[in-house]
Amino acid sequence: MNIAIAQSGGPTCAINSSLVGVFKQGLLTEEIDAIFGSINGIEGIINDELLNLKTIIKTNEDMELLRQTPSTMLGSCRYKLPDYETEPAVYEKILHTLTVHRIEIFVYIGGNDSMDTVVKLSAYLKNINSDIKVIGVPKTIDNDLPVTDHTPGFGSAAKYVAATAQEIIRDSSVYSIPSVTIIEIMGRHAGWLTASTCVLRANGEEAPHLIYLPESDFSSEQFIEDVRKEMAKHKAVIVAISEGISLSEENSAEFQSGAVDNFGHKYLSGVGKYLERLVADRIGCKVRSIELNVMQRCSSHICSKTDIDEAERIGRRALSAALDGNTGQMMYFRRISEMPYAVTIEMTDASNVANLEKMFPKEWISPEQNQVTDAAISYFLPLIQGEVNIMMKNGLPVHFQRPLQMR
Amino acid sequence: MNIAIAQSGGPTCAINSSLVGVFKQGLLTEEIDAIFGSINGIEGIINDELLNLKTIIKTNEDMELLRQTPSTMLGSCRYKLPDYETEPAVYEKILHTLTVHRIEIFVYIGGNDSMDTVVKLSAYLKNINSDIKVIGVPKTIDNDLPVTDHTPGFGSAAKYVAATAQEIIRDSSVYSIPSVTIIEIMGRHAGWLTASTCVLRANGEEAPHLIYLPESDFSSEQFIEDVRKEMAKHKAVIVAISEGISLSEENSAEFQSGAVDNFGHKYLSGVGKYLERLVADRIGCKVRSIELNVMQRCSSHICSKTDIDEAERIGRRALSAALDGNTGQMMYFRRISEMPYAVTIEMTDASNVANLEKMFPKEWISPEQNQVTDAAISYFLPLIQGEVNIMMKNGLPVHFQRPLQMR
Repeated sequence: MNIAIAQSGGPTCAINSSLVGVFKQGLLTEEIDAIFGSINGIEGIINDELLNLKTIIKTNEDMELLRQTPSTMLGSCRYKLPDYETEPAVYEKILHTLTVHRIEIFVYIGGNDSMDTVVKLSAYLKNINSDIKVIGVPKTIDNDLPVTDHTPGFGSAAKYVAATAQEIIRDSSVYSIPSVTIIEIMGRHAGWLTASTCVLRANGEEAPHLIYLPESDFSSEQFIEDVRKEMAKHKAVIVAISEGISLSEENSAEFQSGAVDNFGHKYLSGVGKYLERLVADRIGCKVRSIELNVMQRCSSHICSKTDIDEAERIGRRALSAALDGNTGQMMYFRRISEMPYAVTIEMTDASNVANLEKMFPKEWISPEQNQVTDAAISYFLPLIQGEVNIMMKNGLPVHFQRPLQMR
Repeated sequence: MNIAIAQSGGPTCAINSSLVGVFKQGLLTEEIDAIFGSINGIEGIINDELLNLKTIIKTNEDMELLRQTPSTMLGSCRYKLPDYETEPAVYEKILHTLTVHRIEIFVYIGGNDSMDTVVKLSAYLKNINSDIKVIGVPKTIDNDLPVTDHTPGFGSAAKYVAATAQEIIRDSSVYSIPSVTIIEIMGRHAGWLTASTCVLRANGEEAPHLIYLPESDFSSEQFIEDVRKEMAKHKAVIVAISEGISLSEENSAEFQSGAVDNFGHKYLSGVGKYLERLVADRIGCKVRSIELNVMQRCSSHICSKTDIDEAERIGRRALSAALDGNTGQMMYFRRISEMPYAVTIEMTDASNVANLEKMFPKEWISPEQNQVTDAAISYFLPLIQGEVNIMMKNGLPVHFQRPLQMR
């Protein structure tokens, strides 16, 4: 029999490691012949655009390189599978591709949208009495999937963000005048990644002095007051803020009405720039905002070994679960011990995850709504441990290069 | 006798390593007793704010940690020493501090502004027949100091920028739709850091497809045409652009007139955001701009070993030069061989550097003004070689923590 793998949603540092996990387990499984990679997520299955991965990943070194290469080697998509009732033709196309290539297992690596695909596709296949199995492998830097203790990709993003925040702290405190530095971190609905900057406290840093999440109650007035309080204590105040904090209706209107540029476009700055101007206007001190941008999800050169290793393990276990006859399931991590840190890999019905979000716990947010508690540090720390031995050439990390037809 | 060291200008990853170099050489020199650190550059000398560095840097591990810690341990300043004729009192304050603390050598680590201080102060001291020596150690991520082959701090910045650009390339090419990604890189007048992204070609990357420097002829019309041409060849076009490219008068007015925000402030976006909106407006494709911001100058976790080691060496040699009786000099690197790479450390009159800038060579810019030649690759590559063995704790780099009185 043959199998197929696809990657979906936003890139992370770990999604290729999960691909390697499925691939390695496939190599070790005698009954598996071809291992196909679907180009651009489920779209490759719909359009019959498959790669024979054994002709692309040829050596152990290739596998190690791919583990260290950020983003999705197979491309990605934001395609949401329609309901069978509304568009049966799409399902028939999928079935055709799977059947023609004798694919009996399809592993989908992605976030909660992709788990929706796992739910719908596995239900359809069961319904037509097909034996083809569909299994989901989680990934997202947002760490916002239910059921699982954490998501592959998150630990590497958290490690990059914390290490970078620490460097920004050093950079911000060189001059003698008071200053405010605002670090804007990804997370439209869930504040996990922003909250994870608290790990710096384990290394004796006092900053970030203020941490704001989408889950905190936020008002610009309170923010200015918080900043003033911290400025009385620290020369260089550091603020970590989620891109998705909820501005009050009033602030939100002010934020969104914004300016219109020469092209007539709305001035779509992030919340960091908005608060930077607010501080400049209300406090009048030196202020800078820094957006960590896509570097948060692709900085493999400082990935977490725990994350990359776990991502591979969960990929391997996904294939085993499918071989055992499971379908419509998502693999997940259960933390069975905090000290020493240990997880088991389990599975749950993908419908328990599809289209759902897990928020940062309210009880880990300080009563003042501007910090997180020490319990959060214990949760985050194990996820950023360990360094991958990055392969270097000419002083730069080496990346796995996609096959020509993918460029 | 005693000596004093100060750090000035914008932070880099290597400026603390030069401090360690001077300090180490001081420890090895029998006739030197106290080694003072001046808080916030020359301001600490003016205001008699000195630290006894031997009570702060106590072990070999401290020295190694400090070498790996970005930014300026002693703080920094942007203070420009006035002419003696206009403000003799400042010089008398400096002389007072130096005399009271029996300081016979002052080493100033900084950029071209700091070399101006070296020129003025050494001239003043010679003039009053003082034996106190003043020596400059170069540093800047801009690499724009005359005489020296390159500046300490530049290699680490270039390594971070290239490694990050490579990760952004991976991140930008996951979806099937065409896109343009604009990476805005520091350099107000000189394009060295932006140009250095060409090193990715040594590792087989085609991107950045377009590189624009302050030294190139730039027009928005030509830029849009260049982007269109590259889009015909590549799905994901990557552009590296200096923050300081010269917009034509017309574009510049458009750029600067910009929008006014809710606070009545001018909308001061960078050139990246400007060109992002231009591409959106004129080409209408998916486009994103990314500012590498202060991370360019403080990302020690991926610093260049060559840079950090050279920064220490040039610091050591600065003290030796002063002990040999030299004053008013800046130490510099002379490249004596490209393959294998080798430099010697020489000295030049600081007036050859003070207030001057070295531009990226016109002959290394492609005739189309949108790329750099292979000669540039050979120049840049040796500077980013080697990795420092970063000390980690709790999954994060450890930084040297400043003494309490500095926080």
